[in-house]
Amino acid sequence: MKGIYFDGTRAVYREDLPMPEPSATESRIRIHYAGICNTDKEILKGYRPDFQGIMGHEFVGVVESSPDPAWIGKRVVGELNAGCGTCIYCRTGREKHCPDRRVIGMDGKDGCFGEYMTLETHLLHQIPAGLSSRQALLTEPLAAALEIPKQVHIDPDSSIAIIGDGRLAYLIASVLHLFGAELTIIGKHPEKLARFEAFGRPVLSTEDTFELVVEASGSPSGLELAGKIVRRQGTIVLKSTYAGKTLVDMSYYAVNEITIKGSRCGPFGPALRLLEKGLVQLPEADFYELKDFEAAFHSGSFKAGFAISPL
Amino acid sequence: MKGIYFDGTRAVYREDLPMPEPSATESRIRIHYAGICNTDKEILKGYRPDFQGIMGHEFVGVVESSPDPAWIGKRVVGELNAGCGTCIYCRTGREKHCPDRRVIGMDGKDGCFGEYMTLETHLLHQIPAGLSSRQALLTEPLAAALEIPKQVHIDPDSSIAIIGDGRLAYLIASVLHLFGAELTIIGKHPEKLARFEAFGRPVLSTEDTFELVVEASGSPSGLELAGKIVRRQGTIVLKSTYAGKTLVDMSYYAVNEITIKGSRCGPFGPALRLLEKGLVQLPEADFYELKDFEAAFHSGSFKAGFAISPL
Repeated sequence: MKGIYFDGTRAVYREDLPMPEPSATESRIRIHYAGICNTDKEILKGYRPDFQGIMGHEFVGVVESSPDPAWIGKRVVGELNAGCGTCIYCRTGREKHCPDRRVIGMDGKDGCFGEYMTLETHLLHQIPAGLSSRQALLTEPLAAALEIPKQVHIDPDSSIAIIGDGRLAYLIASVLHLFGAELTIIGKHPEKLARFEAFGRPVLSTEDTFELVVEASGSPSGLELAGKIVRRQGTIVLKSTYAGKTLVDMSYYAVNEITIKGSRCGPFGPALRLLEKGLVQLPEADFYELKDFEAAFHSGSFKAGFAISPL
Repeated sequence: MKGIYFDGTRAVYREDLPMPEPSATESRIRIHYAGICNTDKEILKGYRPDFQGIMGHEFVGVVESSPDPAWIGKRVVGELNAGCGTCIYCRTGREKHCPDRRVIGMDGKDGCFGEYMTLETHLLHQIPAGLSSRQALLTEPLAAALEIPKQVHIDPDSSIAIIGDGRLAYLIASVLHLFGAELTIIGKHPEKLARFEAFGRPVLSTEDTFELVVEASGSPSGLELAGKIVRRQGTIVLKSTYAGKTLVDMSYYAVNEITIKGSRCGPFGPALRLLEKGLVQLPEADFYELKDFEAAFHSGSFKAGFAISPL
């Protein structure tokens, strides 16, 4: 079959990949659309030196075979992380944190930049009938934004700041404005900030302080700004990851009783419900063919993806 | 009156201090006992370069005059932080975080290492009749330990680690073992750790992981250890402050969705209730006279204090 294979140093388009064989608990999915995430680009830069295999972890597909016949023929999205099933994390609803997990397209498991993929059946989510496949492809990144209200109480009467004006910040603003809270979005690019008008108040800088600050800029300077604008006893949600260590004045956070909360992948169910109802409407991806993966990886659009077997 | 005055560089014992005059909203308290805190020693090292005045913030006294006559003659302890009353922090129950607050014995306000002190009346707490003044003197440091269950849900079925074997760790263990949770106390000094036997499992090191880790060691290495032993999606409560900035791998906390929560002064009410019921029993201070302040500051005991006008 066709697919984009990462050989440990670079991505290669191949047409000779074997058809993936599901285990006793896995389903086989025919991939229709796949989305490109920043993580995929980081893999190309060496973020996952131990990984070799088919890339990609955002997909929409149709179940072709499954140990549970009810799934066959269903249009699905799926979660990334398959845990061991027995550790403290798997036993306490934190499968995505299993130290021995396999992660599609990045850790011990082939991903979705190919015609077919296998996935643990319990990680599948059916796409509601009224939701287009192209919108459903945004389930996984939207779920990451929904991890914030899963972790933190969003007080609708509270003041919230989002630091960043990129795609992640956009997804977060799309979710948090639904709670009725007053959103301030702090960015560096006026043309990108303009997209946030519908969600709240986009600004280049602020003198205000906020109960909740979401750092989604991807830059250590974002964390520093977050510390300045968060109120005492307030909360910083850390959505960004930074390469290397950062110099942090931890005493400042202790004395001012500030909470810093790391935040990563999120829940698929609420993401599908918000997309189905049209409460979150996201710019759809620009689609490429698998063989044009280099152009796709270098696309400057809001989102790029592959139309592998378009529905 | 007699008192210990910090002149900006050093502490001086004086007998010529003026009797403090209360404002319209303040009460005047005759100080009977005062406790020495590490913060007092840090002031001697230059921690509060702008402060000049009578030192001390832990006290037990009797109200001598008050705008509310009901307070007169009452035996009291009192909170440290007097806010402006109008800022966002004062208006939302966070007076201790008021940027313009005055703090007895350290910021814009004379403290309790003297025969008399004035304090905003709303900061007073009456000592229950059955509680000795010497035990009540430990209300303020015990309250700081109670700030942890005020901020974080303590799951009695959860695994909790305390890093540190000093006085702060002892106060925290005294409180948290009451919740029924399994406590592990990680210290460096076997003789100090022995005191923790009644509260949980004192160890020099551990291979276990914990849902909640309280860092109370006062050393940046304690924070590093906390990051290693906290579970993914777990919480670190930061009770320690460290001089200067610390190199921190913030991405580790983001990816593992760890929460870091700064924690400082706490609630007096629960501290008085636990002391009154004998549910927390703390080693009482070794008492000195004010004129012997140098010996008191250098005392190696669990707690040192001043018996100014012993009850």
